[in-house]
This record gives sequence, C-alpha cells and structure tokens, in this order.
Amino acid sequence: MAEAAVRKRGRGGGGAARRAARNTVSFETARYIERNIPNFEILNEEALEVIETNAETVLEEIGVNFVSNPGALERWRAVGAEIEGERVRIPRGLARELCKTAPSRITQLARNPERTVEIGGKSLVLAPVYGPPFVRDMAGGRRYATMDDFQNFVRLGYMSKWLHHSGGTVCEPTDVAVNKRHLDMLLAHMTLSDKPFMGSVTEPSRAQDSVDMCEILFGKDFVQENTVMTSLININSPMTFDEVMIGALEVYAANNQACIVSPFIVGGAMAPVSVAGTLTQVYAEVLTGIAYSQLVRPGAPVIFGAFVTSIDMNSGAPTFGTPEASQILYGAGQLARRLGLPYRSGGGLCGSKLPDAQAAYETAHTHNAALLGGVNFMLHSCGWLEGGLVSSFEKFVMDADQLGVLHQLARGVSVDTNGQAMDAIREVGPGGHYLGCAHTQANFKDAFWRSDLLDYKPFETWSEEGARDTQALASQRVKQLLADYQKPAMDPAIEEALHAYVRDKKASMPDAFV
Amino acid sequence: MAEAAVRKRGRGGGGAARRAARNTVSFETARYIERNIPNFEILNEEALEVIETNAETVLEEIGVNFVSNPGALERWRAVGAEIEGERVRIPRGLARELCKTAPSRITQLARNPERTVEIGGKSLVLAPVYGPPFVRDMAGGRRYATMDDFQNFVRLGYMSKWLHHSGGTVCEPTDVAVNKRHLDMLLAHMTLSDKPFMGSVTEPSRAQDSVDMCEILFGKDFVQENTVMTSLININSPMTFDEVMIGALEVYAANNQACIVSPFIVGGAMAPVSVAGTLTQVYAEVLTGIAYSQLVRPGAPVIFGAFVTSIDMNSGAPTFGTPEASQILYGAGQLARRLGLPYRSGGGLCGSKLPDAQAAYETAHTHNAALLGGVNFMLHSCGWLEGGLVSSFEKFVMDADQLGVLHQLARGVSVDTNGQAMDAIREVGPGGHYLGCAHTQANFKDAFWRSDLLDYKPFETWSEEGARDTQALASQRVKQLLADYQKPAMDPAIEEALHAYVRDKKASMPDAFV
Repeated sequence: MAEAAVRKRGRGGGGAARRAARNTVSFETARYIERNIPNFEILNEEALEVIETNAETVLEEIGVNFVSNPGALERWRAVGAEIEGERVRIPRGLARELCKTAPSRITQLARNPERTVEIGGKSLVLAPVYGPPFVRDMAGGRRYATMDDFQNFVRLGYMSKWLHHSGGTVCEPTDVAVNKRHLDMLLAHMTLSDKPFMGSVTEPSRAQDSVDMCEILFGKDFVQENTVMTSLININSPMTFDEVMIGALEVYAANNQACIVSPFIVGGAMAPVSVAGTLTQVYAEVLTGIAYSQLVRPGAPVIFGAFVTSIDMNSGAPTFGTPEASQILYGAGQLARRLGLPYRSGGGLCGSKLPDAQAAYETAHTHNAALLGGVNFMLHSCGWLEGGLVSSFEKFVMDADQLGVLHQLARGVSVDTNGQAMDAIREVGPGGHYLGCAHTQANFKDAFWRSDLLDYKPFETWSEEGARDTQALASQRVKQLLADYQKPAMDPAIEEALHAYVRDKKASMPDAFV
Repeated sequence: MAEAAVRKRGRGGGGAARRAARNTVSFETARYIERNIPNFEILNEEALEVIETNAETVLEEIGVNFVSNPGALERWRAVGAEIEGERVRIPRGLARELCKTAPSRITQLARNPERTVEIGGKSLVLAPVYGPPFVRDMAGGRRYATMDDFQNFVRLGYMSKWLHHSGGTVCEPTDVAVNKRHLDMLLAHMTLSDKPFMGSVTEPSRAQDSVDMCEILFGKDFVQENTVMTSLININSPMTFDEVMIGALEVYAANNQACIVSPFIVGGAMAPVSVAGTLTQVYAEVLTGIAYSQLVRPGAPVIFGAFVTSIDMNSGAPTFGTPEASQILYGAGQLARRLGLPYRSGGGLCGSKLPDAQAAYETAHTHNAALLGGVNFMLHSCGWLEGGLVSSFEKFVMDADQLGVLHQLARGVSVDTNGQAMDAIREVGPGGHYLGCAHTQANFKDAFWRSDLLDYKPFETWSEEGARDTQALASQRVKQLLADYQKPAMDPAIEEALHAYVRDKKASMPDAFV
C-alpha cells in the first residue's frame, strides 16, 4: 500500500519529545492521503463565474458585519473597504487580492514527526468529530459527555489506523468548567496521543493558552516558525463575524497557526434554499474571513471551510448526508481550488439517533463526496451522530474503519506491468481460476482493502457467533481498543510542565460556566 | 423536480392495456434519471489504451471458449476467427468492429407508456435485486424464497417511487418447479406491475416463453419492432460462454430484445487480483459477447455489463461495496462509453447479513459510484443482502428510498436567476435568517430532497415513538405498502390469455427441479 504506507513509531520524535522513553506499544497510523485520482467537478466554468461574480456583488453592495471589533473595522478601513457602523463593504476584487498571500499548502507538525500532515493540493487529512455535548454507547445510552469520555475518544483516535489527526473538541467535557475545560482538552491531546491536534477558539484568551501550551510542547521559537495547530473558526452565517471567533483567529494568525475559516450553514435557515445561492454566500463569507486573516498577518496559514447542510422543511430539523449537501461540497471545493487554498469539508455526517443503516447511508454519502470533491481536511470523519449532538463510541470505530475505503480508493488504478496482470490471464486461461496463480500469490496480501470491523463470514459462522449487527461488533472493538491502549512516549519534564501550566492556570481563576 | 418529474398514471396505457379499467389507485413513479452532472473518470487516456490493447491481445492470443455451441463456432469462423475445439481466437480489431452495429441507446417499452425507459447516454434506469434464493424480514428471519415472496417484491417495486423497472428474478421462488417458475415470475411482473421487466435466461426455451408471453401482452408485431425486455446474460468468467446463457442471448437477439452482456466476477477467483487486469478481462469478455450478439442479429440491442466484486483473502468470501469494486465500476464505464454502448453495473451491493450499518455503508458506496460512474442500467438497486443470497424486504424499501438521493444529485446545480437567489441574500442580509424570505417561500417545497423513511425527528420525539432503528422503520413501511397495494389496471382479456398460456405450458410438462 503506497499511499497508506504504514509507519511504526520508533522514537518519541518531535522536538523535546525526542528524548522520551522508548518502551511503549506502537499503533499503526496510515500516512495522510495523497490522491492519485481526479476531482469530481459538478460546476461548469459558467456556473463558477456566476457564483464568483455574485459573491463579489454581495461583498460590495450588501457587505458583512464584524461585530464588537473596532480593530477589525480599522484594518478593513485601512485597505479601502467602506465602513458603516459594523458593516464592512468590500470593493470588488479586494478580498480575492488579499487572499493571494495565503499559502496553498500547510504543513502541520505533530510531536511525532511521522504523524506530521500536509493540508492542501491533492492531500486529504482525516480528523474526528468535533463539538457534541452528548456521548452515546451501547451500554450507557445517551448522556452528557465528561472528561473521561473525552480522554477515551482521544485514545481511540490515537489507535485508529486510518485517522491522521487527533482533532479538537471530540466531545464537550461538560463536567469541567467552561473557562477551564480547554486546558484539560489540550492536555489530553498532547499527552494521550502523538497525532496533530486543534486549538481552542471559545475565547481569544483560550486561543492564547493553546499557543502557550504548544510552546511548552514544541519550544517557543519552533511554534513561531511552524504550524502546530489547525483551529476551527466558524462564521456566524449569514455574513456575521463575531468577536469571539475572530478574536481567536487574530491570536492564531498572529502566531502563524492555521485557521479553518468555515461558514456553519443550515441551508434554508442561514443561507438560501438553492445550491448556487448557498455557494455564493459561502464563497463571500470565506473570502472575507481569509482576506481578514491576511490583514492580521500576511502569509498566515488558512483553510477554505464549508460546513453546509440542509433543513427538513417539515420539521425544521437539520438533515445530513443529503444530495444538496454533496452538491455544495463539490462546488465549494472547486471554488477553493480556484483560489489556490486548502479546503475543509465533509465528515461522517448523519442525522440518525443510532449508529444504524440511516447513519451509515448518510455518512457514506458524505465520505464519498469529500474524497471525490477534493477535501484536504475532513473534520468529523468519525464518531458524529444525531446531527452533531452526540459523539458515538461505536460510530467512532465504525467510521474510522470506513476511512480505509477512502485510502484505497484514492490510490487510483495502477497500469504498470504488475497491475496489467497479463501473465495471470495467460496462465489461467478460459474456465480456469486465479486463486492459485503466481500473480495472485504475489499480490493477494495488498490487493484488496479489508475491513477490521465488518463481518465477511458465512451466514452459519456469523449465526453461531451471535448474529451480531455492526453496532454490536463496534461495541466489542471499542472495549478491546481501550483495554489495549498505552500512552505514546513523552519527555517526562515536558509532560510535567504541561500539567503545571494547566494546574496553575486553573488555580488562577474561579470556575465559570459561560 | 425536473428529472424526477412525478407522473400519475391516468390510463391503462400501452397497446391492448389502453382499454383497461380506470378505477385503480395510482402510485407515483419518477421518470428515469437523465443526468445533468459529469461522469467521474478514474482512468486517464494512457490507462484506457493499455487496457483496450491488452484486451485485444487476450482475444487474439488466448481466446475465449464457446461451450457446446457448434452454431456459435460456425458464426465466428465465418467472420474470420480462428477456431480450435471450442476455443475462439478473435483477430485484433474484429470484435470492436462487430460491436459498431449495436445501438448506443435502447428504449425499453412498458405496458404503461409513462413507465417506458431509455437506457444509454446520460440516463440511469433503476431495477431491483436479482437472483437470491433466500428472503429475510424482521418477523420471519431468513428462509427460502417462495412465489408469495416474489409477488410481494413485485408489488413493492411497483409502489416504489424512485424505482423505474420491475426487474427479473427479484427472488427465486423455490416452491415452484425450476422448469415452470419463470412462467409465474413473468406473469407476476406483467400483471402486478406496469413497469418494464426482464425475461428468463435459464434455458433458451424459457427465453422463448418470455418472448411468447410478451407477444400476448404487447402484440406480436409490436414485440418484433420494439424492445420490451432487458435480460441478463452472465458470462462464465474467465472467458467462457456457456450454451445456456448464450442460447438465451440468441433467442433474445433474434427477437430484437435487449441483453445485458455481463461478466460475473469475484476478483481474485474469476479474474486477476488487480483492477487493471480485471478490467482487461471484463473488456475482452464483453467485447466478445456483444460482437456475438451482432453476429446473431446486427443492430440487436445490448448493454455492456460489469458485475465485479472482490474476494476476502482471509475467508474466501466475496465482499461488496469495496473500493476496488468502485474503481472497476468507474473504469468499465469509461470503456463502455468509448464503445458508445449503454452500461450496466452497480446496485445496492453489500455482504452484511442484516440491513444494518455495514449493509448501508457498502450499499451507499456502490450507489454513489454507479451514479457518478455513468451507469445506465443499475440492477440490484434495492433489496440486495448477504452477498446476493438474500432478498431483504426491509432493505428493499430502505434502498428504494435512498434511490431518491441519486435522482436529486443527478439534477446538478441550477444557476438560473432563481437558483442564484441574489434577491434572497439581499432581502435577508448579515445576521438575518432565510426561513421566511420570499425566495424560501417560493422554493421550499422542491428545494431539498426528503426521505420518506429515515427519521429526521428530534431525539425526544423519536424516543417517545419507540427509539426505532432504520430496520424497524422499514419493517413498518413494508407492511403499510403491501396493505395499500392495488393492481394496476389491465385488459381482462389479455390477463386471461396470459394466465391461460401459463396454465397450458405448465400442464404440458412434468415438474423438474433442474
């Protein structure tokens, strides 16, 4: 497997962690995907130009709001935008011009250098679910998420072969004060995993804490010179940039850390009910956010984000894995590539309350669209349930297994001599079979992707083993993975410094739940 | 919904059926899909040429076997092939040249003309599962299929909005003698549904029965001048054309009825373990079968078929919905289009024993690949379970609902003035919401595809209603549909003539179970 080249971690790796102990168990992680297949382009040139032109009209004539952020208004005024209250109207072409200093490809370093990822071009980096306040598993049902749950999701992510990234808020640890939980979350990502991770965005000061903790983990100069976090900046659609998210973006951009600038849209509520109208708004919003990041620091690493779903007009509920969502995903990818920017979208999105067939249909639609639509950073790749209200333990391992499908599909089709297999066809001939031929013997181990979870057994064996469905198989796998988990090696001095930072910071302020 | 234009049947329609009673309930059926999106092309020009060249080498140097069929050998000899025993070696270029008389698009007429389908170009016609000896439902579990089951699947197919075709052997009615069951199956398709259907291929004489019954249903001249059946001719891979299947093809081609010429391949057993090698063999086999159909009757309607899955090298079990299967589906579509032929592949394929998440992941992978890969005729679109051993009642309605996703995705993205939605963006502005704006009011009914089965309700409502998973929702839907079923109108004289044909034919021979 070329693209899915499996690398054992031999050393602690990554800055200070190089000096770490070497006596821990290794878990295989595939390299991030470099696609060897084309992108699927749903929009033709005319449609792309209509959307781009309309988005410039939106920025010029309607404008966007930067809320409670005089510094942002000043930055915009200085480059020629028209300011009226908190409304910013951007002359045609200016936002696109500002975006030109943003890099087309981002290297996000992990403390284990073998887990470092490239975001951009033909790459696809897979990160887990982000944000749910609830968790679910077969034994415990649906309940508020805790820090214990959070840590277990980080452990599962660390052990998931096809997952490249540890993510951010894999669930909301509701048993820790809101003003302190980001510290515990970062500590978990930094110590329980060695994959790259995301920073806090719920307050500019928490973004600064994220930078400070990274300086402990990687070294101060290292952080200023390299990107070690990719954080999620949601735009409050339609066309509103609030001071919390933009404050966090300002911290990250100033520190050379990557931001995903991403509208969060339920189509029909926060954007028009049409695909082209929604794409126009998405494009206008992302152009603005990315242009602004370049005003803060030209060259700051940013990702064109699109998280768009549609609404069920009967119930008002958001829906996921729908055809309109796929169309928007495909179209936004084309717009991002025309700007030369990395692209974030996709995920194992679904509206189902259980990790059942509905969940899997909807997830697979989004997984496929994200692969073919050129996504470079896929958040919510695994574990997402119930419209993002729930992080599901079973669905985490089910989806994480499915990510292997994307790796294999992305390899494309080899037509080298071995791939052509003419010797095999000659050897076997009409009416023969290929099981024992030389070509099969030489290739069978790597020829076909194989699930580590799904059931391929004959009916009789499967019945004897309890006739389990996918959820039941996943439940067993979750237990096994958590039982097998061992922490990756880490320099004890760094680990202690991180713990001390968290301890001191927590002691410095009373608990707050806003 | 343009492509999914829903048509109520107002009249009996179709030849003699025009005179039929008009007092039955109508069920909506969407028009077959005409894609307004591009195809996904996984192979580049170089790869396509390598595969095409190698396939010609296979035909010229290795050849294929036509078993127990002296007439076929004679036809091949007459056009310049080299015959050695049952082996046929075809000079480079000959098979492709012979394929040129095959039409690029087939109109298959239904007895209700509103259900007539076009197979070729950008079309996609959806047909149900074909072939399983077992059925499964939640109440009864897994059991041998009976004629009652068969009739119920035909009824469900008739009532499925997104299904265009009634199919063929929707399950094997094992309680009817093998030499007579095709008569009951055809009678069910002809009388319980008014959608197009498939003929029998298990004996040349049964293909002739299929033609004879169509002549009763449509009229004798009408059948000779029009295509009213699309039947499945499997090639016994590697490179073996047996007398039963080819005998059926000869009957259908001579009568101007369409055949799908389709290798049935479990990669690693019946073809090489590589994608390019398998595509080479598929192409060589289909070229041969289609060329032969044109020797029987130049201009006979034929479809380039590819049913390819891979083997689990651990257990030897066939696997479905795998990335290699998708790669082959995409590649074979490109090869078919370069020949200018309609293409059959895809389906709701899966290996799972239950209609659970595994079934849905695997099914969705194949559904998506079939839509984007340019399939014109998708067999096994709904109801397939357990590697094709089982027709599942629940999965039939689950998959049939999912086919709506493909209709909506195929519509593509409109950038007309309404699609651009600039008025809506102006009306709402930064910080507003779109739920009440004029554009939303004007478009919300048709804007988003909506499942008739999946659960979009909030957690609390769903819990109060029994916390049902997709299988449980589907079970309820199966019961409801079968309770609501009413036969489509039909000329009583024709219906009696069909019954009489079946009665007489059955009485003319003893039961046989081979």
